[in-house]
This record gives sequence, C-alpha cells and structure tokens, in this order.
Amino acid sequence: MAVDYSLYLITDRHLVGNKDFYRSVIKALEGGVTLLQVREKNVSSREFYEISLKLKKIARQYDVPLIINDRLDIALAVDADGLHIGQDDLPVATARKLLGREKILGYSVSNEEEALYGERHGADYLGAGPVYATDSKKDAGRPIGTEGLKKIKQTVNIPVVGIGGISAENLADVKRTGADGISVISAILSRDDTYRAAKELIDLWNE
Amino acid sequence: MAVDYSLYLITDRHLVGNKDFYRSVIKALEGGVTLLQVREKNVSSREFYEISLKLKKIARQYDVPLIINDRLDIALAVDADGLHIGQDDLPVATARKLLGREKILGYSVSNEEEALYGERHGADYLGAGPVYATDSKKDAGRPIGTEGLKKIKQTVNIPVVGIGGISAENLADVKRTGADGISVISAILSRDDTYRAAKELIDLWNE
Repeated sequence: MAVDYSLYLITDRHLVGNKDFYRSVIKALEGGVTLLQVREKNVSSREFYEISLKLKKIARQYDVPLIINDRLDIALAVDADGLHIGQDDLPVATARKLLGREKILGYSVSNEEEALYGERHGADYLGAGPVYATDSKKDAGRPIGTEGLKKIKQTVNIPVVGIGGISAENLADVKRTGADGISVISAILSRDDTYRAAKELIDLWNE
Repeated sequence: MAVDYSLYLITDRHLVGNKDFYRSVIKALEGGVTLLQVREKNVSSREFYEISLKLKKIARQYDVPLIINDRLDIALAVDADGLHIGQDDLPVATARKLLGREKILGYSVSNEEEALYGERHGADYLGAGPVYATDSKKDAGRPIGTEGLKKIKQTVNIPVVGIGGISAENLADVKRTGADGISVISAILSRDDTYRAAKELIDLWNE
C-alpha cells in the first residue's frame, strides 16, 4: 500500500470533547489529513472497538488509511489498515508477526538505536520524537529537536514522521530534516476550525 | 482440550504485591488450582505481555491452562490457551473468529440472556456472577445469588463457573447449583498461605 505520510492526524477525544469529535475529524480529513490514527487510553476494549469502527468508515470515505495505536486486537477486530506501537507496547517483531505483512506497522522512536531496531524488526515507518515539547502526550520524553529527527531520518531507509509540538510555525524546520511527514494532535484538534487547520498545514508542507 | 474448571484462579497483583506475586501463584497451583487467568488493568501492553509470558511458563509446569482476560492481542502474543472476555470487551463472535477454534473462549455473564448469547456466539464456558458481593472487582454488578447461577447453568449446555465472593464457607451452596467450578481471586490471593487456601477449596469441591 502506498501511504502518504505528509499530514498524519492522531485522535484525542479529550481535546475536542465527545460531541464534536467525529465532526472535527471529518473536517480535518476534508482539509487534507493523509493518514489517521486512533489513540485511546483508559477506555474499555468495547469502546475502543466502537470508536475505531466509526473512524474506519469515516476514513474510508476520504481514502485515508486508518491506523490503531497500541492495540493489535482492535486493529485486527476492525480490520484497520495498520497498527502503531511504542516502546511500552508489544514487541515490534511480535506485532508484525500477528499483524501480517499486508498491514502498515508504525513504531515510535526517539533515537537512532530504536530506529534501527524498529526497521530491522518489521516496522514500515517510524514516528520520531518528541521533536518539540508537547502537552498532548504526558509520558513523552525529552525533545529530540530537529537535529534528533534528522539523525533518525538519515539512519534508516523507511519513512520517518516527526511528532511532538509540530505546528504551522515550525513546520518548515521539520520539513528541512528530510522527514516524510508530520504527525499532529493539538495543531489540528485543539483548533475550532479543524478544516482550516489541516488545510494550512498540508499547504505549508506541500510548498 | 479437556479443561477442568473446578478451581479457577484469577490473578490480582494488588492483593499480594509484586514481590510475592509469582510465588503466591505457584503455591496456589501446587495447592490444586486447575485453571489460571491473568487479569491486569492499567498496565502497559508490554507489562501485560511480560507478566503473561512468565505466568504461562509457570502454568505449563503444572499442566494448567492459561487464560488471558480481555486482551486478545496479549493472548495471541504469548500463545495462551485461551481468552476470557466480558460485556465491555470485544464482541464474543469477533473474539472467537480472531482467536481460532482451538483456543478456550470464556465469557462473563450475569443472566440467562447473556448466557445464551455467549453460548450461541462461540464461548466455550461462562463465568457467571457475581454470585455474592465482592470487593475484588469494583465494577461487578448486583449479586445474582446461587439462584441466579443455577438458572444460568440450566439454560446452557457449556460449562458454567461461578464467580464473585466465593469462599470455603459458601462453596457447598455454589456446588449444589450444578456449576462446573468456582472462580476465585481473594479467597486464595488474599491469604498468606495460598497453597493451603487452594488445597482447602479443591478438597471441599471434590468432597
């Protein structure tokens, strides 16, 4: 599957509230989001499953692949396009084996060692960061900066997406590292007009 | 796989503390536990995976099947003998499909309607309860009593295990319902001598 990593939106219902959540995501997809990840913590498996089913239908309408964060069981249950795992999730080789070769497997890294490990054990792409300080993920480590992102990108042959505190203001710096795209949460979901937020980001990226 | 449901231990690390957790489980297996379930909440997937791998090795030594609570991905990743799901987890038919026919699938029910639903959609056994009030599971509903357990047992053809507040004191009443076994947490794990606790329960059950 040819995947466009340019503008990768990760969901966070807490930033938008339940009521407008799906509408916010739809508008962001209309604005130009190219890849969508469902990230849910502290919900029941059933709720995670139901949310993912809904987002899968929505993503299909925009021809955007849907990726599930952490939970391989949810990814399999909704037949998502892929899975994204971090250092605290299932081992990457185990996830690849259970997910099959056809699905997209992403892996979170913050240094070159983790990047090489992920590439060698079956990841299709890497989410590298946090590039900048961020409030969206409480357990994110120390920022690696654009320098850290650049090193990771130069270390591996698979696509690398920058994540963490990326916005319209610093997007050009991130792009200059050679990264294949940016992954955002609050830069889109904390904005009232998620269509415009996504449109601005993708236009800047494509400049 | 012929499964002995007589004395089904569900793990709860919070009742014993991390230090003595594995030792407590080993002693309980030596005492006569016939089936072991790993239940973990609010841990990372990696931690759940690591704990399950350890308990699988331990359970193997006693020829006791290992069942994973809720998380199909962990069950697949450690190649557990089965999965136990509740009303807030993946749909039972979805779980059965992804788990395959060879593995044990358990389903939590509290009434006859849920019991029939589980039986029809692929469950191998039912965990029915709470029979009595219990502190071990915060979100457990109103006790169904031995009457409720008996009705469930008479409604389905698959094995039914009573759960919730079962101890040496009320075990005879539970057995009289026709249930195929008892599932316990604190009746074993909150005791200092988990070997003796398990031995007492299995001896009473086999009387």
